[in-house]
Amino acid sequence: MISIKEVFDVIEATVPIYVAMLLAYISMKWFKLFSEDQSSGINKFVAKISIPFLSFHIISTNNPYKMNRKLILADIFQKVIGLVVFVIYDRFMHKGKLDWAITGLCLSTFPNTLVVGIPLIKAMYGEDYVGFLGQIIVLQTLVWYVLLLFLYELRSSMAVLSSIQGEIEEEVRMSEEIITRGNKTWYVMKIVWMKLIRNPSIGASFAGLIWALISFRWNVNFPTVAENSLSIIYDGALGMAMFSLGLFMASQSKIIACGKRMAAVTLALRFLLSPGLMALSSYIFGLRGTPLNVAIVQAAFPLGIVPFVLAKEYNLHPQIMSTGFFTSMIIAVAATLGYYYLLQLNMVHH
Amino acid sequence: MISIKEVFDVIEATVPIYVAMLLAYISMKWFKLFSEDQSSGINKFVAKISIPFLSFHIISTNNPYKMNRKLILADIFQKVIGLVVFVIYDRFMHKGKLDWAITGLCLSTFPNTLVVGIPLIKAMYGEDYVGFLGQIIVLQTLVWYVLLLFLYELRSSMAVLSSIQGEIEEEVRMSEEIITRGNKTWYVMKIVWMKLIRNPSIGASFAGLIWALISFRWNVNFPTVAENSLSIIYDGALGMAMFSLGLFMASQSKIIACGKRMAAVTLALRFLLSPGLMALSSYIFGLRGTPLNVAIVQAAFPLGIVPFVLAKEYNLHPQIMSTGFFTSMIIAVAATLGYYYLLQLNMVHH
Repeated sequence: MISIKEVFDVIEATVPIYVAMLLAYISMKWFKLFSEDQSSGINKFVAKISIPFLSFHIISTNNPYKMNRKLILADIFQKVIGLVVFVIYDRFMHKGKLDWAITGLCLSTFPNTLVVGIPLIKAMYGEDYVGFLGQIIVLQTLVWYVLLLFLYELRSSMAVLSSIQGEIEEEVRMSEEIITRGNKTWYVMKIVWMKLIRNPSIGASFAGLIWALISFRWNVNFPTVAENSLSIIYDGALGMAMFSLGLFMASQSKIIACGKRMAAVTLALRFLLSPGLMALSSYIFGLRGTPLNVAIVQAAFPLGIVPFVLAKEYNLHPQIMSTGFFTSMIIAVAATLGYYYLLQLNMVHH
Repeated sequence: MISIKEVFDVIEATVPIYVAMLLAYISMKWFKLFSEDQSSGINKFVAKISIPFLSFHIISTNNPYKMNRKLILADIFQKVIGLVVFVIYDRFMHKGKLDWAITGLCLSTFPNTLVVGIPLIKAMYGEDYVGFLGQIIVLQTLVWYVLLLFLYELRSSMAVLSSIQGEIEEEVRMSEEIITRGNKTWYVMKIVWMKLIRNPSIGASFAGLIWALISFRWNVNFPTVAENSLSIIYDGALGMAMFSLGLFMASQSKIIACGKRMAAVTLALRFLLSPGLMALSSYIFGLRGTPLNVAIVQAAFPLGIVPFVLAKEYNLHPQIMSTGFFTSMIIAVAATLGYYYLLQLNMVHH
């Protein structure tokens, strides 16, 4: 049960996020402190430097040998359904350019677990379930952000390919080969692969996993000097990410930059589809009782910040992501508590 | 006496600084990750956002009613001598444009107290003298960085004035006033004052002092949510400042960007003039024994990072400052230990 003290814990963890955002908003709207290119520099720092370091830290400090198999399966199933639904929607409604597959997947399955999630779960279900949420954070960083980066790179490679379609066909004709669908797919995948292996987040995630596998298997500890070298970089990640979001919001003419109708859609995806999918998946894979409730509640957290940072970096619907983040943060506590009490009632009823 | 454990403490505190710098250097030199304007955006974030927040934090958490009067006087006297010496040098050798007054003052009197200083002092003189160093950090932030900003703004106002000299004289003739030296000085001061009161570091420093005066007088505590809102911003200050320095170094053709001769001068100012001036001042104002030693040793710490950030922001000798920082950091531990043992010998001798 949530006490007044725990409500304060939640406020103490979430208000600073708004402060960082507001600070950026004011410094831009009133003082025009940064040019557009300078703002991009700050976002790029978050996307290519801070987040990879933070990802490494999160993954490398989680014990990969002690994970809840039901939770992992439920999490994977939820995201796969989300992906399939939005890939189909994108294919038939938007010519398969992947734009809506990516945005739909983000809005419906990527909650803000690290910043908003941990204090809320601690307040609602106690310290024991923080580790449970930690596993979801690890999966998000290790599997889902990697998938998201894959989709982003695939999308931009497809765009590049279609613009040089003529050249490729010419080249193929020159070398006298019969062009097949398989060949083309292989070519796209090669480009995407080349881009992915040079992406710092991917490298950091896998390095983190390898280190975690070694460290928890043979009980090897990271020397303090190495830990300090990581934290000097990732310590600022959250504040900088929020600052970048605030700068972006200030550059738009309206705070609800994507329009009210789209904002309502993002909220429906976030607070209805996301927990709905997670409830279904978790139930199928046998989660029951409090673990089931925690899985559902975390899926109704507001939108994560990494999806915004990547949307801005790859310039795909950043207006929708910033609005999605902002509006879902505003009603986050109310929505989460709503689910919490509903699920409590349900348990009492049983 | 320094033990192996304490040598490790120093390494654990200083190596991460190099890692952040190296990371920036590599990301720029090899991967060309940021454009010049994007790098400026990162430096501006440090100068106008992170450092003001960090300054407020440092000043507001120091008890202003419990400061060592002898230390304060010695510190003021040291900086005043430094300022006078370099203002005179600048006046007669560089036409009084203030460029060398500012750079000379920085090199000869602004040590890296916060990052390098605290772990070194703790290792050499124990926890008791960390508070002693804390007072020097507060003076540095509250008095000397403010003076430094004043000099920077004065310099840029003088440059602006000399370029619009004609217009001003015209205006004065129009209003039929006989122009006096006093009038012109007053005009410059008005411009500088207008710029200073809009500088976030100045505002943050004075707000910090006012809060400290209230908080330690009536024992009022800052609410956690406010403290968290500050730390979300200043947590990344150190890493970002070092990252910015690394980006700048990568943009230069050589690491010793200002040339070897100038590098040698910066080292002489840092490791000879600075502790020399401090030894003189401290002795005059009656510091003796270990407090005297600590005052001298801290003056021989490597160059602070804020002077580089400001040099880059105001574009005044950033090459010299980056070289000064880099070279003085390289030989920092050796130089500091050298002073430490010399002063120990001196005490034993007495």
